[in-house]
This record gives sequence, C-alpha cells and structure tokens, in this order.
Amino acid sequence: DTSMKLKKHIEKAATLWFADRTGRQDFALSTGGGRVVGHSQLTPFVARGDGPLMSAVSFLRSGVHPKSDEWMLTPSMEQPGDCLALHGSYGYVDVRLRQPVKVDAVTLEHTNSLNAYDMHSAPRDIQIFGWYAHGNNCKHSKPPKSLIAMGNYTYHTAGDSVQSFEVSAPHTVDHVRLIVKNNHGHARWTCIYRFRVHGIPSS
Amino acid sequence: DTSMKLKKHIEKAATLWFADRTGRQDFALSTGGGRVVGHSQLTPFVARGDGPLMSAVSFLRSGVHPKSDEWMLTPSMEQPGDCLALHGSYGYVDVRLRQPVKVDAVTLEHTNSLNAYDMHSAPRDIQIFGWYAHGNNCKHSKPPKSLIAMGNYTYHTAGDSVQSFEVSAPHTVDHVRLIVKNNHGHARWTCIYRFRVHGIPSS
Amino acid sequence: DTSMKLKKHIEKAATLWFADRTGRQDFALSTGGGRVVGHSQLTPFVARGDGPLMSAVSFLRSGVHPKSDEWMLTPSMEQPGDCLALHGSYGYVDVRLRQPVKVDAVTLEHTNSLNAYDMHSAPRDIQIFGWYAHGNNCKHSKPPKSLIAMGNYTYHTAGDSVQSFEVSAPHTVDHVRLIVKNNHGHARWTCIYRFRVHGIPSS
Ligand SMILES: [K+]
Ligand SMILES: [K+]
Ligand SMILES: [K+]
Repeated sequence: DTSMKLKKHIEKAATLWFADRTGRQDFALSTGGGRVVGHSQLTPFVARGDGPLMSAVSFLRSGVHPKSDEWMLTPSMEQPGDCLALHGSYGYVDVRLRQPVKVDAVTLEHTNSLNAYDMHSAPRDIQIFGWYAHGNNCKHSKPPKSLIAMGNYTYHTAGDSVQSFEVSAPHTVDHVRLIVKNNHGHARWTCIYRFRVHGIPSS
Repeated sequence: DTSMKLKKHIEKAATLWFADRTGRQDFALSTGGGRVVGHSQLTPFVARGDGPLMSAVSFLRSGVHPKSDEWMLTPSMEQPGDCLALHGSYGYVDVRLRQPVKVDAVTLEHTNSLNAYDMHSAPRDIQIFGWYAHGNNCKHSKPPKSLIAMGNYTYHTAGDSVQSFEVSAPHTVDHVRLIVKNNHGHARWTCIYRFRVHGIPSS
Repeated sequence: DTSMKLKKHIEKAATLWFADRTGRQDFALSTGGGRVVGHSQLTPFVARGDGPLMSAVSFLRSGVHPKSDEWMLTPSMEQPGDCLALHGSYGYVDVRLRQPVKVDAVTLEHTNSLNAYDMHSAPRDIQIFGWYAHGNNCKHSKPPKSLIAMGNYTYHTAGDSVQSFEVSAPHTVDHVRLIVKNNHGHARWTCIYRFRVHGIPSS
C-alpha cells in the first residue's frame, strides 16, 4: 500500500546517500587505489587565487597534476570549484583502476546545479574507453594504440548531479579513459568533479 | 493527497542535503574564491592540543589566521571544534566574496546541537554589513569607514544548525562583515562553523 | 495516523544524518580533543601505493601512527581504504577522551557494505575497556594493569554501517580501549573506520 511504498522511498534515499549515492563499488576511488595517470591540458584558472601556482606545479608529475586524484577520484562535498578543470571545452582523463574489473557502468558527478555559479563548464557528450595493461602498474605508462570502446553517453545539467551510465557490453580492463567530447557551453574550461567506475572485479 | 505531499517532503529534504543544505549559491565559498580578509582576535584555546601552535601562527597573515578560510568558508561535517573561534563573547569577521553580488541572504551554521559539547559558544545576535571595494582584490585592504547595513538577525540554538537570514533591502557588494554582538553565554570564545553569502551576481 | 508516522520517519532520518548519524555527543572526536594514544601493530599494506611510506612513518610517534586520529576519530565519507588498518585479524586501540565521561555507549563504523570491496576486514567480536588517568594527559602514558570491563559486542556486516552498543553498567573514565577479538575473515588486516564514545561528561 501507499504507506509501505513511501517507507521504501525513504529507506532507498537514505541507503543511497549513505552508500556514496550510487550504492555501488567504485574501482577508481583514490583511497581504494585508483589513480589518474594522464589527462589533457588543464586550465590555469581553476580557482581564483591559485591559478599561477597550479599552473607552475602542473605537468611536474609527467604531465599529471599532483592534485588530480584528490580532485576527481575522492569523495567530497563537491562544492563549486573543487574539480579537475580541463582547458577548453573538450579533453580526456586516463584512470588506472585499483584492480582489473569487468566494467558495467561509470558515474559522472558535477557540482549540484542549485549551488553552481555556472553550469556551462559541465561535460555534455562523453565517451568511455578502456584497456588492460596486464598488471603494468607504472604510473606513467602509455595507453595502447587501440582502446576498447565502452559507450557514448550524455550528462544532462537538468538532472541529478550524480549520473550513472550503464555499459551495454562489459569488458575486463584495468584502465579507463573518459573523453569529454564537448561541454555545456563554457569556452575556457570543463570541470570534472568526480568520476566513478563500477563493475565486477575479475578473479 | 497525502502520498504526494510526503513524497515531496522526502524529495525536498534530499535535494537540500545534496545542495549544501540551502539550495543556494554561496559567494563566500572558499573553493569559489571567497576569502576571510579580517577578523577580531581569536581565542588561543580553539581545540585541546593545538592551542599554543595556533596562537603562534595567528596574526602572521596580516592578522588573518591562515586556517580561517578552511574553518568558516569550506563545507565539512561541521563537527564540534572545527570552527573559527573568536576570543570572548563578541567579535567580527570580514569576508571578500568571489565577485560582486546583490546580497539577498546570509546563512550561519553552528555544529549540530545534538553533537555539541556546549551550545553556549554559538553566536546569538548578529549584524551584517557590506561594502564594495570596486575590484580591489588586495587581501588585506581596509574596509571603508562607512559600511552598508544589511540587517540584524538572531541565531537560535534550538533551531536547525543551518539558519538563513533574508536581507530585506539587497545591495550589491563584494565584501561582507559578520558582526557577532553576543553569543549564547560562553565567556571565553565564540565559534563560527560556516558562513555563507547568497544573492544575485552583478553583471 | 500513517501520514504522521511517515513524516516522523523522514524527520528522524534527516535529523540523524545531520547529527553525525548517531544524534549523540562523541567524546573521542579528534576536533573535540580525542586522541589515539596506543594501538597494536598496523598493516603495512593499508592502501596501494602508500604501503612503504606508511610503514616507515609508523611507530615514530612512540608507537602511534601520526594519522591515527584522522583515520578513526575524524568524520569523513568513510569510503573504502580510509581507515586505521590493524595487522592481522585481531588487535586493539587506546583512545584518550576529550574529558572524563560516564560512558554509556560506543559506536563502531565500517565502510558501507554496498561500497566495500571486501567486508572481511570488518571487526566482528569486540570488547570495550576503560580507565581513568586522573587528568594525566601525557600522550604516551601506559594504561594501568587493571582495566574496567565495559562489555562485549558484535559488529554485524549485514547491518547498518554505523552500529552503536549500549554499555549496561556505565563507569566514568577518560580513556577507552577497543579490543577487536576477531574480524569477519580477513587474514591480513582489520580496518577501523570510525570509533565514537558516548556518555555523560563528569562534572
Ligand atoms: K571533487
Ligand atoms: K567548519
Ligand atoms: K575514517
């Protein structure tokens, strides 16, 4: 009846919030061992005040900004400005997973539209690729020439800030590339607040 | 009907939680560019153990404690002790906003009364002022002699930990002063856990 | 009636979430002054990548890892890997409370089972002891030979991630020992994500 349905609604909402909002394991999570191993150029104007410093530090870690894992693979309140900010309206990020996983979904999170100063910097059309480095854990190894395509998706700024995309044909990989093909209209930067990778660990 | 009303209650509660609890933009937010640029004297006994260190570091940044932005302009769990602690039962804090804003409300947050060891350190009567420095972004610039009055408000310890106060006659400013006229009875310090500034960005 | 009951469910869920999930004061909280003052050996493999470093830093602080307070006495999203990881399937942690407290409950939190990579590392059977050092705040003081027994409890991996255990015969203490007698099956380490101590402060 109605009462039971509503009670389930409450419980479901609470359960998901308490479970990182997706209720799923995240194999890209920094505290679990996930790492950003490559990305396109970052904007030097991520947040007022630390532009010049960030610009200087950037690219010291073989091209990977030292705060990348904290920005996009670590849970936080995801308030405006707390993101990895790619230069321009498109770009990519490569993530090494904590272990090989048969990837069945990814989740992209932007700051909440109610709090955002501007939603134009949110990714719009994205593409997911993956590859398997067979235990090569070198942080700065190059991806192979041929990557496994895992789907095209669209992040909608009118929706919930946390949006999951199911992969129709799961493959086992230990690296995932997130390609942002375009954003919601910001000419200078594109912000990635959090990226999660879900699936079944390969045994 | 009842079922729809309750469903809306659930959704509203979840939406606000996911949106920094206010569902509004915060122009004082540290990751957005907000900065504490002045404050009255801090207590040297903010938390057991880091009293002496804090006391030493304090006032090195032209009188602004280096952790001020983290303490009161950054979202956190806002657990007891994680605050900017003014010396005595009254004082003030000056905040530079990320950009000029027609301020229509401010929000003061104290730690939750259920978790607090003592609610006496909460601000009680507050006054909000503002000024417009016309793009002078110098961190330690002095406020002008005449400030714009934006209202008198009272924070109630019996209410929700997050309390918003509407400004009846909005003005466009880029700095806001929070004056704590008195607190809820603590003689030695007054804690500010988070301060948010809302409004319409001036174009 | 039904409508009122459900509304109370919603309010209760929201209230607890906003109040550190327990709605109680936590006298072990790091920002309140709680400190880890001793623990059994930690695993050197807490998280991929920082194993060797942690191993080296460990035991510099008279046997207390410098990140202990952050790991288990500080609120966070409690995502997988963000824990104090004891070596093996059993061990203990000693915590100095912010002040003497008549302890009436403790709370043990593990990462959410929906997000966890593996729940085997969760504590199972635990024992709580306490002692009163009479204001001796020395960080590395030894506990007395005879401790006050405060109960035996079991953490269930099928339950909520936050589990509180009531102490049937409260005693006033300023230190608490959490003994993990065994875990849920992990042979190499046991993870403690957060430990809270509740009660009535002694006046
Ligand atoms: K982030
Ligand atoms: K705070
Ligand atoms: K933790």
